[in-house]
Amino acid sequence: VRDFVEILVIGDELLSGETCDTNSHWLDGALESIGWQVARHTTVPDHLEAIAAAFEEAARRVPLVISSGGLGPTGDDLTMAGLARAMGVSLYRDQGVLESIRQRFARFQREMTPNNEQQAMIPEGAEVLENQVGTAPGIAARLLGAEVYLLPGVPREVRWLFEHRIRPRIDRQRAAMVRRTLKVIGVGESRLEHEIREVIAAHPAVRWGFRTLGMENHVKLAAPPEAIAALDAAEAAVRATLGPKLYGAGTDTVEQVVGRALRARRETLALAESCTGGLIGKRLTDVPGASAYLLGGVLAYANEVKVGALGVDPQLIERHGAVSGEVAAAMAAGARERLGATWAISATGIAGPDGGSPEKPVGLVYIGRAGPQGAEAKELRLPGDRAAIREITASAALDWLRQELAG
Amino acid sequence: VRDFVEILVIGDELLSGETCDTNSHWLDGALESIGWQVARHTTVPDHLEAIAAAFEEAARRVPLVISSGGLGPTGDDLTMAGLARAMGVSLYRDQGVLESIRQRFARFQREMTPNNEQQAMIPEGAEVLENQVGTAPGIAARLLGAEVYLLPGVPREVRWLFEHRIRPRIDRQRAAMVRRTLKVIGVGESRLEHEIREVIAAHPAVRWGFRTLGMENHVKLAAPPEAIAALDAAEAAVRATLGPKLYGAGTDTVEQVVGRALRARRETLALAESCTGGLIGKRLTDVPGASAYLLGGVLAYANEVKVGALGVDPQLIERHGAVSGEVAAAMAAGARERLGATWAISATGIAGPDGGSPEKPVGLVYIGRAGPQGAEAKELRLPGDRAAIREITASAALDWLRQELAG
Repeated sequence: VRDFVEILVIGDELLSGETCDTNSHWLDGALESIGWQVARHTTVPDHLEAIAAAFEEAARRVPLVISSGGLGPTGDDLTMAGLARAMGVSLYRDQGVLESIRQRFARFQREMTPNNEQQAMIPEGAEVLENQVGTAPGIAARLLGAEVYLLPGVPREVRWLFEHRIRPRIDRQRAAMVRRTLKVIGVGESRLEHEIREVIAAHPAVRWGFRTLGMENHVKLAAPPEAIAALDAAEAAVRATLGPKLYGAGTDTVEQVVGRALRARRETLALAESCTGGLIGKRLTDVPGASAYLLGGVLAYANEVKVGALGVDPQLIERHGAVSGEVAAAMAAGARERLGATWAISATGIAGPDGGSPEKPVGLVYIGRAGPQGAEAKELRLPGDRAAIREITASAALDWLRQELAG
Repeated sequence: VRDFVEILVIGDELLSGETCDTNSHWLDGALESIGWQVARHTTVPDHLEAIAAAFEEAARRVPLVISSGGLGPTGDDLTMAGLARAMGVSLYRDQGVLESIRQRFARFQREMTPNNEQQAMIPEGAEVLENQVGTAPGIAARLLGAEVYLLPGVPREVRWLFEHRIRPRIDRQRAAMVRRTLKVIGVGESRLEHEIREVIAAHPAVRWGFRTLGMENHVKLAAPPEAIAALDAAEAAVRATLGPKLYGAGTDTVEQVVGRALRARRETLALAESCTGGLIGKRLTDVPGASAYLLGGVLAYANEVKVGALGVDPQLIERHGAVSGEVAAAMAAGARERLGATWAISATGIAGPDGGSPEKPVGLVYIGRAGPQGAEAKELRLPGDRAAIREITASAALDWLRQELAG
């Protein structure tokens, strides 16, 4: 039997259509992984009585309550006061917190204004949890016999405080459901289920799920710890069935997998981006240490840059158009040669919403790949809006290079 | 005074870290726009008693309750049964619903399995709301004097049923709260509140809020339609106080504002990105039509690319390091010249987690700006992780160009 926890989220902007709460979702997974079961999420506005009531209700139902939001320095930040009201205590100015806020402002050479002192007003009897990544401290308190933890609303601070200050205190050391995720790019969800339908039928002890994220599809396997042998067998069977279509597992991203392959081969990569506008580079450099294999690239948005900085033959553009397989291949070849890289990938296409025509509609994209054996291009016809077309193009180009590096 | 509504979301997968609820967020905006104020979100698991209790609690607090999820054909779909328990009634098989499910399966030439009949089990006294985009019908009912509406969990069906079946019945024809958002980059939340504290004090009819998004801070003003004169006056006073620090309002992004300014001036832009890895280009090209002013750029991750593709003097790199104001300015000057643009911006820095040193710690970033008057650089010392440092750097570089274009 697992213990129950409730999550309380506080903020007007989370009820007005302005902001979508993602902290609860992250906390769900983090709590699940250490043996807790989330029994309820509640979101209330920046309203003193509503906050106090929500804390009290949750503390009556479960032994652990974690809140997020309302710890900032401005007048609408009322979580401390709401908890104090529920506890029946006053707020006091904590000198240690005040001092650490002062030091944080000094470190970043910014002036501290009087309202920052509000972040040092703590409910009496509560414990301060030092926050090394922001000014608002976390708080630990007891309410009606329940443990209560207060976190700020900034996702990065939620994660840091949970990992460093809360998890060590509440870890139940109880094995969670074991989950595996296997990832492919460019194979649809129904196709994926169809291809592994016999594996699914042969492993009834495993809970199967599918998830679509842009051009990616994920097969999700879950089983209780006692069924881990069945889970391992099911995972092996999926891997055998899908083979090189699988780009990775778990938290892998295709940019990480490409980076690992380049690093292992001691090879380098250059980019030539048009319609993706820098997105391929952004994703590759999301990975720390990308400088070991990514030399750089050219953002060739204007045709003159394709010609001048990448050496694309202007007649090629005239004859086939900037959105063509010929130009995609020439962009990749040019980036590879100019930057002296082992490999190069490129993308040129019509991301919309404007710029399409009957012959070259929105969603028509060419990706290019250049390497020691020469340069080639691939045509994609993509659904979705501008953002989706760009993301899918970046994923497809990276996965095309991954396949070459793996082959 | 606005009427209050609560949203109830039902499903184990929304509490386990598997799925992030986005229906509540969409409903928030839709309800707000027709005169309702969302007072609370609650998420509960697929558990009969929990569902019944959550309906009852919400119906005691507010006159309108809208739920999403738990109307599917499988054994874990218990929302109908939960509402029936709260109402103290039984479920009955609705022949009309059953027939429309049968017809839907026939139309898509799919076989109807026995569990689909569960979707025709309706609480006695409830009204069926025909769903033309899925098998689960919507439901309207009364509980403890409150109106209750049940929607499925599929986002597309939530939207269709709300728009076609619920909105016409609950539209208060009351103008929504009027909201304004004023945006700055590089001025902290507490500093911002401090600077406009007299404006806030002078406009008590306006509801004030502050929000931090990376390096951006937003002042949020809200007032009911009858107080729009006060809202206009408050907005004008904030604009007068903050002056050129404000980069935009409403849904503006700094990349849009920069694009509009360049377009109006018929000028062009080039980029030279190192630590941002393509993010500045990605953000500028998120804006449709960016090709009117963005020529392109160089992703100069390796020093050889800074020298070869941007013409940065290698002695400059040797003397000051690649992360220096001198190199940032030279990168911008090189991009401007090589691409033939009116303006160029650049970024070089240490985004971490590795690569820092006592003299040049993680978070040390230089942004560069080149234009007709020459090139210059600015030092930033940024908090946060790799992703935050990169986002803040991109925002700061874009805002620095905006200030120059506005000045």
